[in-house]
Amino acid sequence: MKQSQLFTKTLKEAPRDEKSPNAKLLIRAGFIDKLTAGVYSYLPLGLRVLKKIENIIREEINRISGQEVLLPALHPKKNWKITDRWQYKEMFKLKSREGKDFSLGWTHEEIVTPLVQNFVKSYKDLPVFVYQIQDKFRDELRVKSGLLRGVEFLMKDLYSFHRDEKDLNEYYEKVKKAYFQIFKRCGIGKQTFLTLASGGTFSKYSHEFQTLTPYGEDRIYLCPKCKLATNKEIMKEQNYRCQKCKSQKLEIKKAIEVGNIFKLKSKFSEAFNFKFKERDGKERLILMGCYGIGLGRLMGAIVEVHHDKNGIIWPDSVSPFQIHLLSLERSSRVEKISRKLYKDLQKGGVEVFYDDREDKSPAEKLIDADLIGLPMRMVVSERTLARGCVEIKKRNQKRGKLISISKVKKLI
Amino acid sequence: MKQSQLFTKTLKEAPRDEKSPNAKLLIRAGFIDKLTAGVYSYLPLGLRVLKKIENIIREEINRISGQEVLLPALHPKKNWKITDRWQYKEMFKLKSREGKDFSLGWTHEEIVTPLVQNFVKSYKDLPVFVYQIQDKFRDELRVKSGLLRGVEFLMKDLYSFHRDEKDLNEYYEKVKKAYFQIFKRCGIGKQTFLTLASGGTFSKYSHEFQTLTPYGEDRIYLCPKCKLATNKEIMKEQNYRCQKCKSQKLEIKKAIEVGNIFKLKSKFSEAFNFKFKERDGKERLILMGCYGIGLGRLMGAIVEVHHDKNGIIWPDSVSPFQIHLLSLERSSRVEKISRKLYKDLQKGGVEVFYDDREDKSPAEKLIDADLIGLPMRMVVSERTLARGCVEIKKRNQKRGKLISISKVKKLI
Repeated sequence: MKQSQLFTKTLKEAPRDEKSPNAKLLIRAGFIDKLTAGVYSYLPLGLRVLKKIENIIREEINRISGQEVLLPALHPKKNWKITDRWQYKEMFKLKSREGKDFSLGWTHEEIVTPLVQNFVKSYKDLPVFVYQIQDKFRDELRVKSGLLRGVEFLMKDLYSFHRDEKDLNEYYEKVKKAYFQIFKRCGIGKQTFLTLASGGTFSKYSHEFQTLTPYGEDRIYLCPKCKLATNKEIMKEQNYRCQKCKSQKLEIKKAIEVGNIFKLKSKFSEAFNFKFKERDGKERLILMGCYGIGLGRLMGAIVEVHHDKNGIIWPDSVSPFQIHLLSLERSSRVEKISRKLYKDLQKGGVEVFYDDREDKSPAEKLIDADLIGLPMRMVVSERTLARGCVEIKKRNQKRGKLISISKVKKLI
Repeated sequence: MKQSQLFTKTLKEAPRDEKSPNAKLLIRAGFIDKLTAGVYSYLPLGLRVLKKIENIIREEINRISGQEVLLPALHPKKNWKITDRWQYKEMFKLKSREGKDFSLGWTHEEIVTPLVQNFVKSYKDLPVFVYQIQDKFRDELRVKSGLLRGVEFLMKDLYSFHRDEKDLNEYYEKVKKAYFQIFKRCGIGKQTFLTLASGGTFSKYSHEFQTLTPYGEDRIYLCPKCKLATNKEIMKEQNYRCQKCKSQKLEIKKAIEVGNIFKLKSKFSEAFNFKFKERDGKERLILMGCYGIGLGRLMGAIVEVHHDKNGIIWPDSVSPFQIHLLSLERSSRVEKISRKLYKDLQKGGVEVFYDDREDKSPAEKLIDADLIGLPMRMVVSERTLARGCVEIKKRNQKRGKLISISKVKKLI
């Protein structure tokens, strides 16, 4: 894409009310726009990142047999009365002109459970794995962490349905692996730790995936040896010892929860009286699990982990484009070579963001490139052309190097 | 995909409260599920259709330089007070715990106008074309047409920003062509007519795209010669004559509006005081256009147009799979050949839906295949194998034909 065509622009200043690095950088670089607290628009660059994250998640969840659906955001009161969660205080409520009560979904157990119940009658129909990537709403107070905590936010929510606990446990472990794979592919694998958390009334533990970042809202206790983390609540129960190696040498770290997995067991199947016929002819309650990842939050976490004082440093896998091609000066030679490289790179299947802007100085272009943060920068200037070269530099490295124009194709 | 793996099943009966062919067929065939009036879930087969429609729309709108964004569904009251549309009666309203007033977006002029205003200052920044594919909400009364009228529905909404009327008019004509291309690619080109409608206060006319169907909620006056339609309101003004050829031989038809395009001119730029600096240094108001297509409605319209008494007849371009492969009987030979064909077709890049269900009779499989409505059916049975063949039949043709198994590859 040509940068001159993009309707957004980088901003010199971040909005004053944004304190978190993710919001400041993503807004300044033109990835998102704040409509009101906790409610953001995704601009063209931001949407490209979001779609890449979405595709990584989709691939990994499809790999563990997830079947994708799209459930409504608007939920009738009836469903939430059945589970006695209509009073949940973070849930937005509204009324239609005809007087019907609705809520806006912040999770979908109340919708997916009766939906799957329509189709599952026998052990032969099990297990079932259903997921969606869909907009959620949560009436949060005092949101101030950019994409890390949204009032409206995109989420991948997966629900699993099983005939027994063994099957649920096996799938739960599969999801754990898929989640590690997702966070690894999104470039935050090293910073993300499985964290023991409370399982509520249904299960002893649930698991969170916590990514270390100074702006995280959570505190976790990390065992540097086992790489296992524990949240505050559980840590107290365990007398501040690692659950695995019993060590007390734990590090207290700030972190942000990028995913969670939860054994719901029969909580929702009981509420909806969702039973199936076992091989022996007896009726049994379905067991369930639920598994969430916030897409915007994940995008925010990636920026929290990967940035420096000059801007974002996108991991390859989620970067809106792979190469930022800068036509540094306005000379016919520089522009001609730049245009040719732009076409050649595109033909080679490379996603190129081409800074062809005519009203920007070389310094402005270089500053913008650092702010936007594509993993690779390719500069064409009089200086590089004098040596028959372009300069390429990785965003996470200090120095670039000159390569001859004829070798650019090999680079791809 | 193997049909035995799909968690949904076909239903013998449509829900009693659904009257429209699209809802009855889509629910029975397992494409959608009704949560409450006007609010539907997309099940795996339905989501596949929706994604294909989405991709066709995205390709055509990208072709006319649309830049994709994703705007929030939750809108602050403030934006709607500026344009004096806060009282719009079909708009859902809600309050946060902190007492903030929100509405749920049924259109996005109030959001996209100030967003683009952030970035556009000069004639050099124009024109701008921004679109999204996003969830909308409309508090409709007595909805009863399945996907043709939703309370919650996915929409593609495109907004254009121009420096003068000439530029707006030119783009408006481009969108018209892109829309025809979209409806043609979705298989309803022949049934869809450009229809003159009221332009409200901003413009003499706007244009609707109306698809002829007996369940349509609108009435249009169609000139069989010019292929131009006019809605009731405008027809009256024109004394029931074709605007183009002045003929009075018009056909009155039932139709459903699948898209509309509208010149907003300066209505919204005035409200937001959105001006740009012209070449002569003077400030002028931006001119705008808006262009919508409802994705679910389009899916419903396709089914209204393409079905028979046995089920849906999907056009190739939007069908969830291209071939329905039926392993008709449970014999090791039939199953072995079916499995091999399934693999070969997939390797050849064909999207195959493979009916490998063990608990269904041949008759049940054939009935389900007609109901689900993939464009091509391939049957493997003892009878076909006795002749070294499979039977292939197009869904829209009465008779199938036998082709030898060795020729299946060539077919691809």
